[in-house]
Amino acid sequence: MDIAKPYLLFLGDVRDQLAAKTASGIVDWRPEWCVGQMRLPGCRADCGLPDLTIAEARARGAQTMVVGAVNAGGVLPDRWIANIVEALNAGLDVATGLHVRLASIPAIAEAARSNGRRLHDVRFSELTFATGKGTKRPGLRILTVGTDCSVGKKYTALALEREMRKAGLAADFRATGQTGVLISGRGVAIDAVIADFISGAAEWLCPANEPDHWDVVEGQGSLFHPSFAGVTLGLLHGAQPDAFVVCHEPTRKTMRGVQHPLPSIADVIDRTIVEGRLTNPAIRCVGIAVNTQNLDDTAAQRCLEETAAAHSLPCVDPVRYSVKPIVDLIVATYHGQNA
Amino acid sequence: MDIAKPYLLFLGDVRDQLAAKTASGIVDWRPEWCVGQMRLPGCRADCGLPDLTIAEARARGAQTMVVGAVNAGGVLPDRWIANIVEALNAGLDVATGLHVRLASIPAIAEAARSNGRRLHDVRFSELTFATGKGTKRPGLRILTVGTDCSVGKKYTALALEREMRKAGLAADFRATGQTGVLISGRGVAIDAVIADFISGAAEWLCPANEPDHWDVVEGQGSLFHPSFAGVTLGLLHGAQPDAFVVCHEPTRKTMRGVQHPLPSIADVIDRTIVEGRLTNPAIRCVGIAVNTQNLDDTAAQRCLEETAAAHSLPCVDPVRYSVKPIVDLIVATYHGQNA
Repeated sequence: MDIAKPYLLFLGDVRDQLAAKTASGIVDWRPEWCVGQMRLPGCRADCGLPDLTIAEARARGAQTMVVGAVNAGGVLPDRWIANIVEALNAGLDVATGLHVRLASIPAIAEAARSNGRRLHDVRFSELTFATGKGTKRPGLRILTVGTDCSVGKKYTALALEREMRKAGLAADFRATGQTGVLISGRGVAIDAVIADFISGAAEWLCPANEPDHWDVVEGQGSLFHPSFAGVTLGLLHGAQPDAFVVCHEPTRKTMRGVQHPLPSIADVIDRTIVEGRLTNPAIRCVGIAVNTQNLDDTAAQRCLEETAAAHSLPCVDPVRYSVKPIVDLIVATYHGQNA
Repeated sequence: MDIAKPYLLFLGDVRDQLAAKTASGIVDWRPEWCVGQMRLPGCRADCGLPDLTIAEARARGAQTMVVGAVNAGGVLPDRWIANIVEALNAGLDVATGLHVRLASIPAIAEAARSNGRRLHDVRFSELTFATGKGTKRPGLRILTVGTDCSVGKKYTALALEREMRKAGLAADFRATGQTGVLISGRGVAIDAVIADFISGAAEWLCPANEPDHWDVVEGQGSLFHPSFAGVTLGLLHGAQPDAFVVCHEPTRKTMRGVQHPLPSIADVIDRTIVEGRLTNPAIRCVGIAVNTQNLDDTAAQRCLEETAAAHSLPCVDPVRYSVKPIVDLIVATYHGQNA
């Protein structure tokens, strides 16, 4: 899956900004890939891009219309179909992270076929993978792991990529979820592959590379989440990270969607090392990323300082502040340079 | 998936007994479900059942023809198609564990449709599962786990079911692989489900039950296998076993299909408890099942005795000898009775 850029972001007529979070994520991290947004009457989301028609977007070079909004249930509202067909007729590819496959809608399938355009259902994986081999590959890898789902693993990985490049390192974000795939233009929704091939898909995602090249792999789930730990473990084994960053949301009481309490950060560090050693005996934790959005500035700063001291590791909020302290440790540890 | 019984076992014209191991497994464990076998000229496998034509099998009450043989690559040889169509025309359902879907072959799909018969591709899962919830369910569960793949987890689980029933316990084998599904007539090939739903599928497989009822869950892979540990962990979390048995093959040097050495039995016990506690804090090991087929009788006996002493647990070969020592411990531990 390699999605042609730049994008026109289709927001439809969603009722709030949260429903456009896929589009927001793309704008936050890849503004240079976004020529504009397209909104239908009644849309209450705004990604701050120029409002364009499909023809205007095409004139500005757009290659793909990304359906960057979700309806309840991930379904595609009938009223959006005409816009998607129009985009295909205008020569754009179309990408979505919806639950429904674009090609399962006859009008869309026909428009794609007759115009020779590609449909990207990034929630589904059409690729065939080998089973994981577990053999050490050249190149460096860093994985974001979490105390829970939805604690900032994708944003942390993207912030690491940006800051590592700023520090002069060769670093590439490797997407493992649908929004990440749209943000990076490639990758695999790892939770959508057949169970036998989780680690094999992860090996495919971050293959052998130059010895000083970093793959920054977006983590999924948590080793402590009873719904998704299998995905997390297969991804850990396949990614065989040299380094990992623990992501955490300090105000959450139970894990997302279940009754289980959150594990401690120390538990996650220890368990990730124990399990990760199977495919990379050198695995180590290089930092902690805390999502402090529910704390005021004083509380956030105190939380980061206390967490850093408790674990003797750099601790940052990658969105509110910067991941530079973690990247400084990476540079010092793996590239023999002091920041 | 609930496969109608009894079965006619179709062996085709395979060159050796190993190619008929699915059929052999069914005969070993469910002889009462097998009305006979059907062999084509040149077949060198024999499951010791009466050789029947499809009409004869139908007359003896057969409901499903099980393709219990595999060709190299799991493909369906063209010359078997006529036999499958004949079975459908005679009113039998057809089940296989091949890589190819029966319904993808037009002649077979058409015969099934026109005769109103069912096609079971047990390697594939057509079911839609919920994500795992991790909530403790009533009922008792025992899982077989392994130091590696293919060390006897299925046979151990089936032997436990048999011996537990003999001891007066309510016990049901729960299949998680294709051969197990054919042996039990139901279940799910857990490695074929979408990664997000591994633990959810396991929860579906062994749902809430009577407080003293045992589900005997067939394990898959190994927590220490770099290709499949994600499947193993998701199955462990979803099965939430009260008890587990470690399966081991003492002469194997590296894990199946990869370069990794086998973990020790003690490692597997410890890791299974650490991970299994997430969904069942009471998890404990109740025995060790060693596949001693590569040892002579003296060496086998010594191996079992030494392993039992080293771990202070009953240690058996479930095929060569008996799992009774493990069941005795289960009865004493969970049902308050001495053997």
